[in-house]
Amino acid sequence: MALALDVKADEGMWMPAQLPTIGKALREAGYKGDPKDLADLTKAPLNAVVRIGGGTGAFVSSDGLVVTNHHVAFGVIQYNSKPDRDLITDGYVAPDRAGELPANPDYRLRVTVGFDKVTDRVLAGAAGKTGRAYYDAVDAASKALVAECEKEQGYRCSVANMFYGRDFYLVKQLELRDLRLVYAPPRAIGNYGDEIDNFVWPRHAGDFTVLRAYVGPDGKPADYSPDNKPYHPPSHLQVAREGVADGDFVMLAGYPGITYRHRTAAEFADQIEWRLPASVEVLKQLQDVIEDQGKADRDAGIKYASQLQSLKNGIKRFSGELEGLERSDAVTIHREDEAAMLAWLATQPDAKTLKPRIDEAMKLIAAGKDVRERDLLVGLLSSQTQLMRGALAIDRLAVERPKPDAERESGYQQRDEELIQSQLKQAQRRYDPRVEKALVTALVTRYQKLPDAQRLPEFDAVFGRTAADLAKTLDRVYGATKMGAEAERTRLFKASPADIAGSSDALLVAAHKLQPALLRIEDERKSREGDLLRLRPAYMQALIAYREKQGKAVYPDANSTLRVSYGKVTPLVARDAVTYAPVTTVAGIVEKNTGKQPFDAPKPLLDAIRKGDFGQYADPKLKAMPVDFLSNLDTTGGNSGSPVLNAKGELVGLNFDSNWEAVSASWMYDPRYKRAIHVDMRYMRWLMDKVYPAPALLKELGVPAETH
Amino acid sequence: MALALDVKADEGMWMPAQLPTIGKALREAGYKGDPKDLADLTKAPLNAVVRIGGGTGAFVSSDGLVVTNHHVAFGVIQYNSKPDRDLITDGYVAPDRAGELPANPDYRLRVTVGFDKVTDRVLAGAAGKTGRAYYDAVDAASKALVAECEKEQGYRCSVANMFYGRDFYLVKQLELRDLRLVYAPPRAIGNYGDEIDNFVWPRHAGDFTVLRAYVGPDGKPADYSPDNKPYHPPSHLQVAREGVADGDFVMLAGYPGITYRHRTAAEFADQIEWRLPASVEVLKQLQDVIEDQGKADRDAGIKYASQLQSLKNGIKRFSGELEGLERSDAVTIHREDEAAMLAWLATQPDAKTLKPRIDEAMKLIAAGKDVRERDLLVGLLSSQTQLMRGALAIDRLAVERPKPDAERESGYQQRDEELIQSQLKQAQRRYDPRVEKALVTALVTRYQKLPDAQRLPEFDAVFGRTAADLAKTLDRVYGATKMGAEAERTRLFKASPADIAGSSDALLVAAHKLQPALLRIEDERKSREGDLLRLRPAYMQALIAYREKQGKAVYPDANSTLRVSYGKVTPLVARDAVTYAPVTTVAGIVEKNTGKQPFDAPKPLLDAIRKGDFGQYADPKLKAMPVDFLSNLDTTGGNSGSPVLNAKGELVGLNFDSNWEAVSASWMYDPRYKRAIHVDMRYMRWLMDKVYPAPALLKELGVPAETH
Repeated sequence: MALALDVKADEGMWMPAQLPTIGKALREAGYKGDPKDLADLTKAPLNAVVRIGGGTGAFVSSDGLVVTNHHVAFGVIQYNSKPDRDLITDGYVAPDRAGELPANPDYRLRVTVGFDKVTDRVLAGAAGKTGRAYYDAVDAASKALVAECEKEQGYRCSVANMFYGRDFYLVKQLELRDLRLVYAPPRAIGNYGDEIDNFVWPRHAGDFTVLRAYVGPDGKPADYSPDNKPYHPPSHLQVAREGVADGDFVMLAGYPGITYRHRTAAEFADQIEWRLPASVEVLKQLQDVIEDQGKADRDAGIKYASQLQSLKNGIKRFSGELEGLERSDAVTIHREDEAAMLAWLATQPDAKTLKPRIDEAMKLIAAGKDVRERDLLVGLLSSQTQLMRGALAIDRLAVERPKPDAERESGYQQRDEELIQSQLKQAQRRYDPRVEKALVTALVTRYQKLPDAQRLPEFDAVFGRTAADLAKTLDRVYGATKMGAEAERTRLFKASPADIAGSSDALLVAAHKLQPALLRIEDERKSREGDLLRLRPAYMQALIAYREKQGKAVYPDANSTLRVSYGKVTPLVARDAVTYAPVTTVAGIVEKNTGKQPFDAPKPLLDAIRKGDFGQYADPKLKAMPVDFLSNLDTTGGNSGSPVLNAKGELVGLNFDSNWEAVSASWMYDPRYKRAIHVDMRYMRWLMDKVYPAPALLKELGVPAETH
Repeated sequence: MALALDVKADEGMWMPAQLPTIGKALREAGYKGDPKDLADLTKAPLNAVVRIGGGTGAFVSSDGLVVTNHHVAFGVIQYNSKPDRDLITDGYVAPDRAGELPANPDYRLRVTVGFDKVTDRVLAGAAGKTGRAYYDAVDAASKALVAECEKEQGYRCSVANMFYGRDFYLVKQLELRDLRLVYAPPRAIGNYGDEIDNFVWPRHAGDFTVLRAYVGPDGKPADYSPDNKPYHPPSHLQVAREGVADGDFVMLAGYPGITYRHRTAAEFADQIEWRLPASVEVLKQLQDVIEDQGKADRDAGIKYASQLQSLKNGIKRFSGELEGLERSDAVTIHREDEAAMLAWLATQPDAKTLKPRIDEAMKLIAAGKDVRERDLLVGLLSSQTQLMRGALAIDRLAVERPKPDAERESGYQQRDEELIQSQLKQAQRRYDPRVEKALVTALVTRYQKLPDAQRLPEFDAVFGRTAADLAKTLDRVYGATKMGAEAERTRLFKASPADIAGSSDALLVAAHKLQPALLRIEDERKSREGDLLRLRPAYMQALIAYREKQGKAVYPDANSTLRVSYGKVTPLVARDAVTYAPVTTVAGIVEKNTGKQPFDAPKPLLDAIRKGDFGQYADPKLKAMPVDFLSNLDTTGGNSGSPVLNAKGELVGLNFDSNWEAVSASWMYDPRYKRAIHVDMRYMRWLMDKVYPAPALLKELGVPAETH
């Protein structure tokens, strides 16, 4: 039954510049500030929100204190742990500034300082072009802009594509390289519940950590040095003195990674009706292959344990996404919405220019179906194998290395070689010839059953067209190759392109024969992407105009740039008669506690809960000590550590997870199920005040302890 | 942390005669009728509430219609199912009265027609006696009362013991023997969710069935005959036209089996600190034994599958009970309450007569600890074995058969012989010598480790005192016995006491040698029970007086007599931030539906849900079609099928299960967790109106269909 669902309520990952446009809605939702003050992400308060270690963080003091998630800072904690100083287990409270511990040297924090529209410059060379030429023109212009921007020392730049090629922005970020650990709770607080509670609400983790950013004596980014000084950020957030309750306005700023919300109805249907079920089916087959082989050979089972776990995670995630999109009836909703949009467009003067480009885009998208099975299998062949993938990478490096670095394919540039080499090394612990042959057999057997239109002559030549051909080939290739030896892989990785081309190693010869097909598929993909970059803006333009007519604004799909969401603290009605309240309390820590990992709350925490000295931190309505809270804020991967603000713009929480029902939100925001999970700043403050005291830190945060 | 818990709120399985006493509370809770009208369980409306097939039911028309649970009437449905008429799968709607299908001949319905206090007669012969003599006097007087009462044809009588020997009642019940199936939903409605949803809330089962009681043309109980006429009950309940909502008053009448709420604090401690954990430990060992043997021998595994399942159920139940009692902090609460009661008693004039008897009772209870390990093991030896148990039963029959039937030990009377014989038969499919030897080894090895004080000379003589003795004995006994053959067991079952005594079968000889120990344990138990029957009333008298001082009434522990509970429709806060609403809707059926058993809702139901024609049956607040509801009514096993009434005394639901958190309620009612699960009469009526129509039936129920 199709549900009458307003999918727009509380949905939105807004570019800060859009906020004044939706200012009325924002104020009606409860925001007390002036939406105009949020329009510039390079000014306060949004420039307090930073990229850090793959997630988001926020400055919370003028001396460079940053809060983010425990799991975002986990590498820093791990780096500082030693057998005799186990900070993972014990947590860490820096006794003073001198006691703040340097992060791993590759840990980075980026402050966005520039965000400029560069659409004209990016598209200047693309005008009049199509396909691969359009793609290359955009790529070259973007690379040039980045190179120019990064000439200034201490900055990282990138070009962000908004609305699928309609607008381009040059993002300039100050990159700080000296971060230090100030305060971390023990793992059994920061990651209470671990994998078992992952994606689970009600949740009881204190998923926060406090770091401090340092710069050189000259105030510029610098590697760690004892002479460095705390960084003075252009602005910082104020930790709230009060907490939130069911129904309260909240907003969040962060760097969400990628969403597909504005894809066409056909792409939704493809995702739901084919891609997700097909991926689950083939990944399950690979899982079976590994499990069967692992039963027969315990040693092989151990070698593939990590790949098996990653397959299982993929299956779980894809299944959850499929379940969610089906539950939300996404295909019907998007088909009906798109049909209405196109019907409306037909009555508009713009139709004449937009419609032909939309039609062309849709034809292109439909054509993607013709080879989708083949592309899925070819992709898995070079990601789910160890030696085959290594041989393909070595052969591809021989193609790329002769080019100037800037022109090398991304993934095969100088900066990527270290990763390729480490994968070649890892194969030693992850490769077993029988398992790899069984995996290749499973994938190529599926390939062999595809219709002629999806056939690749190079694949047919290498693997043959029958099961017998395939078995013979794999026995021969894996029997003869010397790439099973780590020394040989290392030698080949370092060898010259001429040596690679002339190699007689059976597997490398096979990879070399397959390579032209892979390059052709890549070229086709880029050509298609080039055309979609050219055509999709017409679809977006029509959609934006249609929404405007409906009185609604459109945010661009997420692309790791700073976005703002707003919504409210709200319960989750997960199933018939099952309601999850939006605030959890320390009582739940005691309930879940088994004394065994991951439900092994530290004794000081349990003692403090038993003691019940919650002071000002207790929730006045619940009359209990809060831990985490739930909101309908629009988030996705990358939003880890995002500051959650109240109506006055004060920090009330840190985002750290979503509920399982929301795993499909990268495609569709369903207001019934989409929730984000945040750690409550009251819990953080109580821990800092009463459990693992850090009075100086609380004072610096502007929320002094009760008890000191 | 001990919780300040008012364990009395909404707790109570009241004898109807007590209701006027607590009338004020009943009216304050929301009851609109006169509590005095509920005082006599042989008058309307309570005489509409009947015992049926091991559960409870209620008359709902003047022509003898009875509603009860689908699971209470399951045997009737099964009995009427044939390969070409699968009523379990399809359900049944009788086309007319002639189409009502006779129940299995042993299916019974009992209407309580007499409930008279007989304390004086029961205790007359016991005065001045102690121990076994007290027990026997009570037993003989009770049996005499029953025999006298049952002289009248068509009645079943029993003596009910209230307050542990303080009061005795003679219960007289009219027994109807011709029940017929009128309306049953398909299994996938009546038992939607089956084992997976057992003890689960939120629940979505339509656990109801309608039967009709028939009597002979003379109006008296009769076996099935086509000439029989519908029975006209003395009263019947009226199905409500409106449903219930969160917070509404509800009450329930039924035949709860057994509770232990008024046991002493020492007995609570024994249950929680020893009996439950010890039982779980030994049952788990037996489970391991069967699983290990089953792995080694697939055939043996199959033979013991049913015993294994029953062990697992026992472990689950005991673990749940333990978990619940610990969560409720039952030991502390009862210790503190009992200590306060005894302190108060010391200030009362009664103390002089009561205190010595209470002390004596407590000493007796404490003494039970001395042999509790032994008694647990001996009990399991004769319940968890097949051939050993059979040999013990045959040997015991030889002891009992020479006595007049009325004097034979209960369980070994003529009426019990059929059950014993069927167990002896079943052994054919359930016995494997290696598994039985392993089970006996596990139990006797534990016995051998007990201190001398718990030793039984007969057991030592048969099994020896070392592992080697035991192994040798079991090899010899199970190697030589011919009881593995069904024909031999049948022969022995029919053999004379003299033949049994003279048998040289190794297992029977062993059983014969063990028997005196078992008889002695039985005698000790009865002697102890006799003394407790004599002494516990003093404890109860003190407790009742103490509660009276607190302004509270005391109900007797449940004993399968008619009781009334009252309370309200109410949600369950199961864990921190997890709330289960008290009314489920058909949306949950669709959510849970997988198309596979037990979540395989029939197509007509799914179609009707999709169609959404819920008419008057929809809940006005939820704007949805209700299925089941939850209350805090006080129930236990035996309450299945109990009618749930609203404030006006109209039928709004049928009780059919409890939540998992309430599994410890046989010992303690914790108002935070004790909930009862009921099927909503609106769901029943909607099914009868719109899904599997039975318009004549609805008319007879006084709630005519909308659509006919």
